[in-house]
Amino acid sequence: MSVRIAPSLLSADFARLGDEVSAVIEAGADLIHFDVMDNHYVPNLTVGPLVCQAIRPYAVRGPGHEPVPIDVHLMVKPVDALIPMFAQAGASIISFHPEASEHIDRTVQLIRSHGVKAGLVLNPATPLSVLDHVLDQLDLVLIMSVNPGFGGQRFIESALPKIEAVRRRIEASGRDIWLEVDGGVNADNAARVAAAGADTLVAGSAVFTGGRYADSIRTLRERALAGRAQTLAHESSHD
Amino acid sequence: MSVRIAPSLLSADFARLGDEVSAVIEAGADLIHFDVMDNHYVPNLTVGPLVCQAIRPYAVRGPGHEPVPIDVHLMVKPVDALIPMFAQAGASIISFHPEASEHIDRTVQLIRSHGVKAGLVLNPATPLSVLDHVLDQLDLVLIMSVNPGFGGQRFIESALPKIEAVRRRIEASGRDIWLEVDGGVNADNAARVAAAGADTLVAGSAVFTGGRYADSIRTLRERALAGRAQTLAHESSHD
Amino acid sequence: MSVRIAPSLLSADFARLGDEVSAVIEAGADLIHFDVMDNHYVPNLTVGPLVCQAIRPYAVRGPGHEPVPIDVHLMVKPVDALIPMFAQAGASIISFHPEASEHIDRTVQLIRSHGVKAGLVLNPATPLSVLDHVLDQLDLVLIMSVNPGFGGQRFIESALPKIEAVRRRIEASGRDIWLEVDGGVNADNAARVAAAGADTLVAGSAVFTGGRYADSIRTLRERALAGRAQTLAHESSHD
Amino acid sequence: MSVRIAPSLLSADFARLGDEVSAVIEAGADLIHFDVMDNHYVPNLTVGPLVCQAIRPYAVRGPGHEPVPIDVHLMVKPVDALIPMFAQAGASIISFHPEASEHIDRTVQLIRSHGVKAGLVLNPATPLSVLDHVLDQLDLVLIMSVNPGFGGQRFIESALPKIEAVRRRIEASGRDIWLEVDGGVNADNAARVAAAGADTLVAGSAVFTGGRYADSIRTLRERALAGRAQTLAHESSHD
Amino acid sequence: MSVRIAPSLLSADFARLGDEVSAVIEAGADLIHFDVMDNHYVPNLTVGPLVCQAIRPYAVRGPGHEPVPIDVHLMVKPVDALIPMFAQAGASIISFHPEASEHIDRTVQLIRSHGVKAGLVLNPATPLSVLDHVLDQLDLVLIMSVNPGFGGQRFIESALPKIEAVRRRIEASGRDIWLEVDGGVNADNAARVAAAGADTLVAGSAVFTGGRYADSIRTLRERALAGRAQTLAHESSHD
Amino acid sequence: MSVRIAPSLLSADFARLGDEVSAVIEAGADLIHFDVMDNHYVPNLTVGPLVCQAIRPYAVRGPGHEPVPIDVHLMVKPVDALIPMFAQAGASIISFHPEASEHIDRTVQLIRSHGVKAGLVLNPATPLSVLDHVLDQLDLVLIMSVNPGFGGQRFIESALPKIEAVRRRIEASGRDIWLEVDGGVNADNAARVAAAGADTLVAGSAVFTGGRYADSIRTLRERALAGRAQTLAHESSHD
Repeated sequence: MSVRIAPSLLSADFARLGDEVSAVIEAGADLIHFDVMDNHYVPNLTVGPLVCQAIRPYAVRGPGHEPVPIDVHLMVKPVDALIPMFAQAGASIISFHPEASEHIDRTVQLIRSHGVKAGLVLNPATPLSVLDHVLDQLDLVLIMSVNPGFGGQRFIESALPKIEAVRRRIEASGRDIWLEVDGGVNADNAARVAAAGADTLVAGSAVFTGGRYADSIRTLRERALAGRAQTLAHESSHD
Repeated sequence: MSVRIAPSLLSADFARLGDEVSAVIEAGADLIHFDVMDNHYVPNLTVGPLVCQAIRPYAVRGPGHEPVPIDVHLMVKPVDALIPMFAQAGASIISFHPEASEHIDRTVQLIRSHGVKAGLVLNPATPLSVLDHVLDQLDLVLIMSVNPGFGGQRFIESALPKIEAVRRRIEASGRDIWLEVDGGVNADNAARVAAAGADTLVAGSAVFTGGRYADSIRTLRERALAGRAQTLAHESSHD
Repeated sequence: MSVRIAPSLLSADFARLGDEVSAVIEAGADLIHFDVMDNHYVPNLTVGPLVCQAIRPYAVRGPGHEPVPIDVHLMVKPVDALIPMFAQAGASIISFHPEASEHIDRTVQLIRSHGVKAGLVLNPATPLSVLDHVLDQLDLVLIMSVNPGFGGQRFIESALPKIEAVRRRIEASGRDIWLEVDGGVNADNAARVAAAGADTLVAGSAVFTGGRYADSIRTLRERALAGRAQTLAHESSHD
Repeated sequence: MSVRIAPSLLSADFARLGDEVSAVIEAGADLIHFDVMDNHYVPNLTVGPLVCQAIRPYAVRGPGHEPVPIDVHLMVKPVDALIPMFAQAGASIISFHPEASEHIDRTVQLIRSHGVKAGLVLNPATPLSVLDHVLDQLDLVLIMSVNPGFGGQRFIESALPKIEAVRRRIEASGRDIWLEVDGGVNADNAARVAAAGADTLVAGSAVFTGGRYADSIRTLRERALAGRAQTLAHESSHD
Repeated sequence: MSVRIAPSLLSADFARLGDEVSAVIEAGADLIHFDVMDNHYVPNLTVGPLVCQAIRPYAVRGPGHEPVPIDVHLMVKPVDALIPMFAQAGASIISFHPEASEHIDRTVQLIRSHGVKAGLVLNPATPLSVLDHVLDQLDLVLIMSVNPGFGGQRFIESALPKIEAVRRRIEASGRDIWLEVDGGVNADNAARVAAAGADTLVAGSAVFTGGRYADSIRTLRERALAGRAQTLAHESSHD
Repeated sequence: MSVRIAPSLLSADFARLGDEVSAVIEAGADLIHFDVMDNHYVPNLTVGPLVCQAIRPYAVRGPGHEPVPIDVHLMVKPVDALIPMFAQAGASIISFHPEASEHIDRTVQLIRSHGVKAGLVLNPATPLSVLDHVLDQLDLVLIMSVNPGFGGQRFIESALPKIEAVRRRIEASGRDIWLEVDGGVNADNAARVAAAGADTLVAGSAVFTGGRYADSIRTLRERALAGRAQTLAHESSHD
């Protein structure tokens, strides 16, 4: 049983991204979350492939410089043209919104044809039926617990039953699909988020604010593991 | 008589933008050129307001930390929503393409209402008639000597007579409007570009490739000044 | 148990809307239905915020001038920009189509942030799954029994089982969510519409044609109440 | 020599448009200006064909109920679909923006095929070259002296030389083409606007604010006639 | 029990379409599948109404020239404008993608108002919930077993359970709705496709490659009939 | 001195395009005009790259099967994605509308990078200023004498002075740029069209109606040559 912590660079210092990436990896980050906004699908514009490529050499761990995955979340519409660009820029996972592609199965196949893992992102109001015929092609489902691209939002509590429902679908599929949650995740709700079934937590200000990255990541991980353990214990007692 | 050199961050190291900004200013840069692409108006996505805000503290000069202008070139469509965001992020100049706004005069007024200087950008094939009724509202005209957003292009020679024609319009207006040129500008053509009438030269790889920023900027400036001087001498001899 | 009758201004005389609003309220209208079309989401253009603001003073009842709700149905895409404008123009309820917003939860929150009630509108073919994760945020569900924005249509009978299904979802939620029906509602089908579960009936020509507004509204209300009573009686006899 | 005053209904009371139309005609209005915004070409949504149709019976003059022209200004994109609707709703003139139609000549022909007069609207920054190959098909040129669709703007002074330039083109064409100006026109600038060559003045708040419509219209007309007379006198003295 | 074979003209010789249509009908084709792409909904552009009209006289069978249905698959967005054009061009069935119409019920009614049969097309990832409120209006459901408009794809195996699920919905409806499958169908999988519930098979290269159209169609039909028979036998043994 | 006749396949029999291409070449056609409409830039959808590829083998002349140019007119928006597809399909010339590309110079370079000749198309109302900075990159200018994509139109007489003006620009450029005219060209106006300066005439029904292709083409050519000769004679007498 494990939990992955994915610091979001949206809260990092964009003037020294390389150092920030190194620092959060040193502090225990499991993957680097990279938010791409195009001012069309969402009302902001952030960073693109050139920036991904620039931080790729910093996303390594240990003496062997083992690569740490860069987890690219595309908040763009349409999506297909950026996929080869991000694949070449070193993305390890590329996730997109079903509302942003006319041909969801095709987009998933395009991502995988570049040797990159494919994820689908569910907005707070997106019904789970979008997963019906594509879950078997996915490596990751990302559940938004805020609305993407809008500032100053708090964690939406109704994400929790949604996480549970997706966890059940993943278990039923028998496949190793990561379940990631993004939006307002912090030390206060990490246990509940993980208890509901998430195994990958995106954290922005919860990691980067305050500056003690290692402490923040450790706290998030401990709370998440505790929450996850509680659920698994509860489930096994009911088998 | 002077010439401004504007290094484009497109060729900088995006993993350490703060240092890059400091270094080119130390090396003599007059302004920082910031290229914004949205994957709609052009087929790439680069950097947005958060990145501009992050480098703002580095764009200063001397012991007094006098601000160095950040010169934002919006290769986006539509443009209006990003203008307040870049104004708050510390942009000093915002330029846009007339093809990307339905209401060009309004967009110029919106930029100026935020205390920011306004520029209009001419693509290689854009006719000068777009300037007819708006030149008097502008602080800058940016002439593209490559097509924006596409890689691996060389300086388009037919930009030179276009620079001359815009220079004549600016002189006729009697106003202090900067004439900037962007695309493939380097030590080989800087003299001709300035001789044609440009007073502000954007340079990407010509500054950042090789690593000796001060040498590169000095060379560009000397060549440009020489070119400009030649033209002015020629003009005065004909008066 | 009650039923609300909402005359649609689409069938009123646009040259004297103030008088029309006063007259239908005098005649017993419970709310004023205001149809906004933008010639993009639907193939017609009707009225916008300025008109809403102009009729706001007329949408009052009794000696105390108690406000009568203005129930704005946005047949526009995209929707977010018009929401603050209609909130300031005095809208009491704003409903929108899920197909017209990329960020449905966000749009609902935007409406509520202005102190306005939020509704979601279901086109005849829209599946109920769009309600799965947003019903708990809604004050109203509007079921279209014709296709919005196209003239000369009759009530689509298959709306009736859909109304029943949404009524069951609302009952299951335990929340006070209005269930409104719009499109071809008249004295002939009002009983069936209400029997299926609707508590708010939009009526255009059924109110405004003929000119005896009070008679028309009374008939609609009586038929609806009769239909609703029959269903409730039937349901209680099965408990 | 004459001047037309066209009150814009944008400043009228939308709750009693029929009365407003009657009142301004009684007060001397020569045509009724009807502004259509679709929240796409401009950031507002106003009124559409149903409202035009509703006021058509009120736009008459004298005992014979002679029709007064309704002058429809389409601030919409695309434009073609609304043209037959406004023609059937009683429009006498339909004007559109060249930026809003891919096929300007075709749109002009479409308007005329319905027996309606056709106009082209020039935004403040639009170059006159758009008139080069279509002026001979037009009944009206409308010059915007503010940016359409944005509130709270003042008359743009640089519209005056533009009016003069279009007047010269019209004279050169030898055709009877109206030259209309819209945006911030009032008693203070009516003389200059007419002196520059306008023969049709749109006035919104300058007519409707204060309530004494006849006085306002008379003042506008007198000032405009004075301005026009001065120019004609000046011109004839130079022949 | 029967199975329909629908050769897709995408694989025919576009220089002699009339002969190709005659040849496949002679070879046993039951209907002619006509793929329309607009380079917006899918990344290719194929053929439109004029081509449909040109082949209409060739789509006949036997001495009486009995018409063979032309089965038009619209891979375009938006769809409504092309419907009357294809109806006049002789289309017998028109299918469209729910993602490509804002008003699905309306589009279905528009097709039927022209006396043409209406179909809905499901992309590989499209959930079946789109059928919930419109299946009763349909004459055909088309399940894509590749992503439409992209070349070089193989049959997606997960289409098989989807076909089964739609077959169950059709049986439950009690209506005569054709169930068509398109994408990579050939002699190897025709039995499985039909066993899953399809009664209409689109075949492109499986018919046109090799040139012996009658052999190819006969093989497809035999395999499909065998597959279908097996399923029906299996089902009846379980009743 | 020569004149090229370019039969437009829009008026050919789409059921037997190969034969039609062979027949018009046999009858004297100099190039094959191929009209591509996407139902977005114009309100119709015609034929795409697959059809171009299919007719390529038929577009040959004489015993040596010397290729006859296929002259592709893109009435599509956007244009860039189709260019490589048509280049591979055997297009010899590709023309596009400046309104349909954000980056006109780039589109021209893209066409030429595939070894294909590049043309720009002027709609009836398009000003000549679009040629100012791109004429030197063009192989062809196509002047529309009807509005593209709309049926049943007659030759627009005001195209004649426009042809003259473009001819003057071409002469001034000193380059070998073809001047093509499309729309309602027939035996009645061919002399005037050529006299105005056109050297390439697109003819649809004027060639294909009646069926005697050789006679029709010969007549068009003779009239055009006569018109052209008259102008040249007139010009030389004024030198």
